[in-house]
Amino acid sequence: MMASGGGGGESRHPAEGGRPNLQFVPFSSALDAGFWHELTQKKLNEYKLDESPKPIRGYYYNGDPPGMPARLTLEFSAFDMNGPTPAHCCPAIGMLYNTNTLESFKSCDKKLLLEEAATEIWDAITSGDAIKNPVLLNKFLLLTFADLKRYRFYYWFCYPALYVPEGIPLVKQPVPLNTKFSPTQIEALQNSYDQLCQKEGLTALPYFLIKCHEDSVQVSLLRNWDDFFSDQREKVTFGVYDPCNFTQYPGWPLRNMLILAAHRWGGLLQSVEVLCFRDRTMQGARDISHSILFEVKLPQLTSSSDCPKAVGWEKNPKGCMGPRMVNLSECMDPKRLAESSVDLNLKLMCWRLVPTLDLEKVVSAKCLLLGAGTLGCNVARTLMGWGVRKITFVDNANISYSNPVRQPLYEFEDCLGGGKSKAVAAAERLQKIFPGVKAEGFNMSIPMPGHPVNFSETTLQQAQKDVAQLEKLIDGHDVIFLLMDTRESRWLPAVISASKRKLVINAALGFDTFVVMRHGLKKPKNHEIGDSPCNNSGSVDLLGSSLFSNIPGYKLGCYFCNDVVAPGDSTRDRTLDQQCTVSRPGLAMIAGALAVELMVSILQHPEGGYAVASSSDDRMNEPPTSLGLVPHQIRGFLSRFDNVLPVSLAFDKCTACSPKVLDQYEREGFNFLAKVFNSSHSFLEDLTGLTLLHQETQAAEIWDISDDETL
Amino acid sequence: MMASGGGGGESRHPAEGGRPNLQFVPFSSALDAGFWHELTQKKLNEYKLDESPKPIRGYYYNGDPPGMPARLTLEFSAFDMNGPTPAHCCPAIGMLYNTNTLESFKSCDKKLLLEEAATEIWDAITSGDAIKNPVLLNKFLLLTFADLKRYRFYYWFCYPALYVPEGIPLVKQPVPLNTKFSPTQIEALQNSYDQLCQKEGLTALPYFLIKCHEDSVQVSLLRNWDDFFSDQREKVTFGVYDPCNFTQYPGWPLRNMLILAAHRWGGLLQSVEVLCFRDRTMQGARDISHSILFEVKLPQLTSSSDCPKAVGWEKNPKGCMGPRMVNLSECMDPKRLAESSVDLNLKLMCWRLVPTLDLEKVVSAKCLLLGAGTLGCNVARTLMGWGVRKITFVDNANISYSNPVRQPLYEFEDCLGGGKSKAVAAAERLQKIFPGVKAEGFNMSIPMPGHPVNFSETTLQQAQKDVAQLEKLIDGHDVIFLLMDTRESRWLPAVISASKRKLVINAALGFDTFVVMRHGLKKPKNHEIGDSPCNNSGSVDLLGSSLFSNIPGYKLGCYFCNDVVAPGDSTRDRTLDQQCTVSRPGLAMIAGALAVELMVSILQHPEGGYAVASSSDDRMNEPPTSLGLVPHQIRGFLSRFDNVLPVSLAFDKCTACSPKVLDQYEREGFNFLAKVFNSSHSFLEDLTGLTLLHQETQAAEIWDISDDETL
Repeated sequence: MMASGGGGGESRHPAEGGRPNLQFVPFSSALDAGFWHELTQKKLNEYKLDESPKPIRGYYYNGDPPGMPARLTLEFSAFDMNGPTPAHCCPAIGMLYNTNTLESFKSCDKKLLLEEAATEIWDAITSGDAIKNPVLLNKFLLLTFADLKRYRFYYWFCYPALYVPEGIPLVKQPVPLNTKFSPTQIEALQNSYDQLCQKEGLTALPYFLIKCHEDSVQVSLLRNWDDFFSDQREKVTFGVYDPCNFTQYPGWPLRNMLILAAHRWGGLLQSVEVLCFRDRTMQGARDISHSILFEVKLPQLTSSSDCPKAVGWEKNPKGCMGPRMVNLSECMDPKRLAESSVDLNLKLMCWRLVPTLDLEKVVSAKCLLLGAGTLGCNVARTLMGWGVRKITFVDNANISYSNPVRQPLYEFEDCLGGGKSKAVAAAERLQKIFPGVKAEGFNMSIPMPGHPVNFSETTLQQAQKDVAQLEKLIDGHDVIFLLMDTRESRWLPAVISASKRKLVINAALGFDTFVVMRHGLKKPKNHEIGDSPCNNSGSVDLLGSSLFSNIPGYKLGCYFCNDVVAPGDSTRDRTLDQQCTVSRPGLAMIAGALAVELMVSILQHPEGGYAVASSSDDRMNEPPTSLGLVPHQIRGFLSRFDNVLPVSLAFDKCTACSPKVLDQYEREGFNFLAKVFNSSHSFLEDLTGLTLLHQETQAAEIWDISDDETL
Repeated sequence: MMASGGGGGESRHPAEGGRPNLQFVPFSSALDAGFWHELTQKKLNEYKLDESPKPIRGYYYNGDPPGMPARLTLEFSAFDMNGPTPAHCCPAIGMLYNTNTLESFKSCDKKLLLEEAATEIWDAITSGDAIKNPVLLNKFLLLTFADLKRYRFYYWFCYPALYVPEGIPLVKQPVPLNTKFSPTQIEALQNSYDQLCQKEGLTALPYFLIKCHEDSVQVSLLRNWDDFFSDQREKVTFGVYDPCNFTQYPGWPLRNMLILAAHRWGGLLQSVEVLCFRDRTMQGARDISHSILFEVKLPQLTSSSDCPKAVGWEKNPKGCMGPRMVNLSECMDPKRLAESSVDLNLKLMCWRLVPTLDLEKVVSAKCLLLGAGTLGCNVARTLMGWGVRKITFVDNANISYSNPVRQPLYEFEDCLGGGKSKAVAAAERLQKIFPGVKAEGFNMSIPMPGHPVNFSETTLQQAQKDVAQLEKLIDGHDVIFLLMDTRESRWLPAVISASKRKLVINAALGFDTFVVMRHGLKKPKNHEIGDSPCNNSGSVDLLGSSLFSNIPGYKLGCYFCNDVVAPGDSTRDRTLDQQCTVSRPGLAMIAGALAVELMVSILQHPEGGYAVASSSDDRMNEPPTSLGLVPHQIRGFLSRFDNVLPVSLAFDKCTACSPKVLDQYEREGFNFLAKVFNSSHSFLEDLTGLTLLHQETQAAEIWDISDDETL
């Protein structure tokens, strides 16, 4: 660390009359990891794309042991302008210029910034503000670019120091305080300084006045000059709280102080004595005796002078004028790093593209994924991308060898020894991908209509346990994804979720077609009397179902509303190629991604699951949310690369969400469910009136035929 | 292993005249893993959904040490009806009934199958065929269901044995051969048997006739009865090649033989002697002396008799009538298992849904993925799902903390210590997902227009090396995916691929929009003279560009054809939110999946990359491939859940694929490229004529304004 008469742009005149010029030790910027972390937060949540300068606050300390550089420290607290200053520290007021790009960091006009800051200091000097509040002399600049993706921070620090080209000649070389002051005087200085600090309520006095006599030393504030030095023959000593440790050189803060002194009192004083007050604790005892004293000739400045030139941009570790870079990706806690990195990508969306996006609604949504197969894995991946923190899987299968290439949470190793439980392995994988997620897996079966559970007391109890577990899980989550590979396994969660008024997102695959839909969300139970959506979703609505506009969420159908057959055992007689995984491999990724994007669009709508359903016809209209449409269903056709957005009404004879089914479930609970599991289709069909409907339809078909025949 | 008079349905009459009835030891089916593997292959590639019975072939051995069950073995060779029979084995001819579902396996009418097989045997007996070819008595049935997803094979084996209800009384209890035959006789028997085998060219004689005298033993075929036993007083001994080891009981093959004998010679013979020929090697010496001899009374059967009843379905290990299941997922080589499992899902598509699908074209496509980020990872995942075996990544970035939640080949661990190379880690991950894939990663940069490489000799040489490497990689692959995050990085591979006539699939993301497209595929070079697609793709075509129908692949544009500005350094001044990853998380999954599905559709088209481009208007028409449309571009709008399929012509001033650019690249190679890298936009724009176009456009704009003013 070399002391210097100035900075990079400073010309070095020979000292006047052969006297050497005073040289100063510049500040070393000390930017704490906490500062960068706080900057990251500010940038993400507050500044966003705003590049305007922001006030920040640093401090310097003067109790360091010899050998330490004079540091200007910025910590996490740097953004709190009203926060406390640490004990034995002087505050410094800075201005942060944080750029949006590395390019504008590089191309920023550093000369101009310095000149502007110098002018502010000079204005404070000439206006007298700096005498009243000497902290105004302690200005600094910080130019930064935060590469938040890689945790690399580019910065350039500047502590502007005004200077006169001819320099400041040393009249008396620096000497330690104890070569001039007696121990009594030193003690008196220390006491006087401490009392003044206490009186002013300051942790340290950056600049002060000293009057020294044989037996006493007095200290006062700059603004008290006239009273303090009323006797004009008094010897004037300026005190400066000095962060520097060098025995021959003062630190940087003295520079602006000397310019102030020259401007204010230069006419009165040929030369002044300077005490670089250094205050440390050595072997348990406080010690200021290593402070240094010297005398300088003040430069001649008039109040009408132009602003002096200034220096102050910090050299980089190579000793060149240039910025520094700190890579925090290696020293920060990796898990915390991962969390903030993931947040970053999401917050980036808000900055410019979708300023109204309420990320919190998405991130905090607790998602239950029923099925951890092709769809479940892809849905979970997309939820992770959206920053969702709570993801729970339910599946009863183990991972088989054909799974990993299509189910992107599993690997070959997971298939060995019969295969891990999908639900458990999926949750483990999410933790491996992102430790910040809270993922759980439940290896359990979902009882299904037409799959009897009454073989024995044991099977019945197991089914009852499974139902209770599923009810508990649905209770504890906000969004229920139905991602199973059979129709009938969707029935029970559809019923429970409808009863509990949970948002249901359903996805199902064909070979090259898919459906992704939200289930209609029934109105809250306490509103049902007299205004039941179910009363409105009957056959009258069905007749008017060609007018699919402005259908609110509570009137929308569920997965079973379009069916006129109750779910039953559909797996019994399926050949392998009819099973769910026989689909074009890209299909599950598309459907899984759309299922989550549909959820996000719904959550962003102010009415959530009650939002009016968008249809294909709405594609040209103003979308209801900043993310776009909020459809009821997305039906995709990969062979045509086409999606349509049908809307359909709830069906009053639906085997899953009709009032009759929900009412029975709510009144009888497992007893009702067990009847459904153990019965053939007809039980649910009788209950809901589908049987009657079938008979009527058949009758109608007969009439149709009869009509044909009469032609 | 209990010997029995019959099978499950057989009634047990008391033996006639107090004599005990002969009991038989049934076969144990021995189905080798190789058999199941071969069945899997047949099912996948040949049978598909065909449930009709298939002839198969097994064999039995009779050289086992005592204690071994009598096995009927089926190996990988079982499906080759003309293959050799192993030495010392008798062949058995079977019929395989492989069902498509477990349900039809269970519900199959086993009684009927047995009756049919019994009738065939009886017909062979009554027609005399069985005497000419006694292997016709060795029939078996195998009913199977192969759960190819889980490598579980359900099966039920049946060796039909005709029987008479009253049983076959033992006249003389079984004794070892050496208690009746002298060593000389035994040796004579052995020699005679061996000579007959050799003469007939058989590995073993299932049934034969024996004539025994003091000093000689003769052996003959059944069909030689009349000559062999011309002396009616001769003692008749039947020989049977016996897989059984029990000293008191014969094995199953004797049963149908005795029915044949009863039918054919029952009128002549009251009782017959039976030699159960057993032939083993003990302590290095061949030994048949443990064969057993006994005498039975033949039942009375006439040629007009109805077919006798039959038994033969095998008991399961619990001793009940029921099927068996073998789970091979644990004993097969897991890597091989994974390979065949992955193939299964794909082949399932062919069986019923898309019988014309040529999977080989997809599986064998060598894919080069330029970019291993959000798009690259998703494209690779979908390629894996399609069974693509060769996937190569190029990327120069390391994995950062924000990547794993959106880039589905990386995990948190990959980010530590500065992050692994994406290209290398992605390839490693693919191997972990599926060991059968051949994945490689190249951690390298792709030189870009406007990113100068002429800072030093070193940078220039590096760029030259990178270009050469990229050229080599493009040469070695069939499909080139452009999945980078900048426009300009796509330029060089677009040029090289156009020159090398490689299929290029390009995907790019906005915030909630994407484009997935194939580049126009120029005609092969030797066809270019006089019929260059480029000659047709000029301004004349542009004027006619509203008629976007029937545009063949060679006339289609590339990613740069729609641009009138050459690519340059677009990253220099982008804020974070303008960078590629700021997109809705589901978008990359959708675009990545569609990029691969587009590739597959193109590969399925008989003209491949030259296929006429489908547009949105074609959605209602008959699609050109069994998988559907083959568009030029898919542009997706997530906010509307909509895709459109634009078609655009190649542009004769394109900065990437125009004849001028390709010509310069082909003639000057790296020298030309270096000029592009080191120059601003204008170099490419001057070369292609874009500069002139700009000037003309500006002139046109001035005229427009002038026109306005004269109004």
